[in-house]
Amino acid sequence: MDKKQEYEAMREKKISSKEVFKGQVLDVFDDEIELPDGRHSHREVIRHCQAAAILAFNNKGEVLLEDQFRYPYDSILTEIPAGKADPNEDPLTTARRELEEETGYQAKQMEELGLFYPSVGYTDEVIHLFVASDLVKTHQHLDEGEYLSYYFLPLKEVLKKAENGEINDGKTLAALLHYVLLKKNN
Amino acid sequence: MDKKQEYEAMREKKISSKEVFKGQVLDVFDDEIELPDGRHSHREVIRHCQAAAILAFNNKGEVLLEDQFRYPYDSILTEIPAGKADPNEDPLTTARRELEEETGYQAKQMEELGLFYPSVGYTDEVIHLFVASDLVKTHQHLDEGEYLSYYFLPLKEVLKKAENGEINDGKTLAALLHYVLLKKNN
Repeated sequence: MDKKQEYEAMREKKISSKEVFKGQVLDVFDDEIELPDGRHSHREVIRHCQAAAILAFNNKGEVLLEDQFRYPYDSILTEIPAGKADPNEDPLTTARRELEEETGYQAKQMEELGLFYPSVGYTDEVIHLFVASDLVKTHQHLDEGEYLSYYFLPLKEVLKKAENGEINDGKTLAALLHYVLLKKNN
Repeated sequence: MDKKQEYEAMREKKISSKEVFKGQVLDVFDDEIELPDGRHSHREVIRHCQAAAILAFNNKGEVLLEDQFRYPYDSILTEIPAGKADPNEDPLTTARRELEEETGYQAKQMEELGLFYPSVGYTDEVIHLFVASDLVKTHQHLDEGEYLSYYFLPLKEVLKKAENGEINDGKTLAALLHYVLLKKNN
């Protein structure tokens, strides 16, 4: 079976879609679908906009990290800078904007590393992962109600934190994997 | 400032919580909170149970992967086996159960690699990542309406797929990072 046949054989087809919750951040849909065997079922999906996350390095090769209180976990988590795209914004623009808003750094160099799908069962969210360097300090301008502290840490220590379970944030782990694989082959 | 003081200074305190959507898979809550500066705000949170994901190796050092149609992305995604915990189930039991249900393999060796937080802004979901080996074939028993194909691939090719953007699933990328870091240090 080729890829197209496999896709058709496994495909769940949308029959109808109903918005069942519309919040300030989350929109939840309950879609009626047709399974490959013809039976009908339902899928609950959070439709979310795209986002960008940035693994940024200073000239000493240290990684820019943020500590931020994350309400769902009732704790301060360590992450790379990230944020949601504005409507119709391309991912590179989102990445540049969020990096500067959250940390007050512009990056002269920025390249896409890959994509990160946070939770493939129930959201269509895509986070575009970037690596940035050649940083220039400008001004931080956080959203209202946003509090975070940022700092630089050597890559080796960041990887140690990932390994030790001090960094569990998904987009941060995914960006680190991409960077480690990239460096291994260059 | 020590960790405890930092936590108190950044903490968002829950004032009240209201369930605004209860679906078959998703429960959405709208919580009223108090920000560190005393103002009130809201946080939308998906309260989700825990889950487990398994990076399983056969005796040739090949990785067990699944191709599964993922409705939110309207495409077939490549992932490691994973699934949600039953009520009060410990993560290791979830991992053993899901591995066998989805692929028909029991693992004689299974160790926790770390945790994966899919989307720290709006869900409290935690996926426990495991590495498994010493596989014994038994019987696959998929949930109703669940279709997937599984196969083994050399680790090198799996990492290549991650690097090339053929694997974007977050839990899979996080498990691979943990494994790569573990092997580097051993």
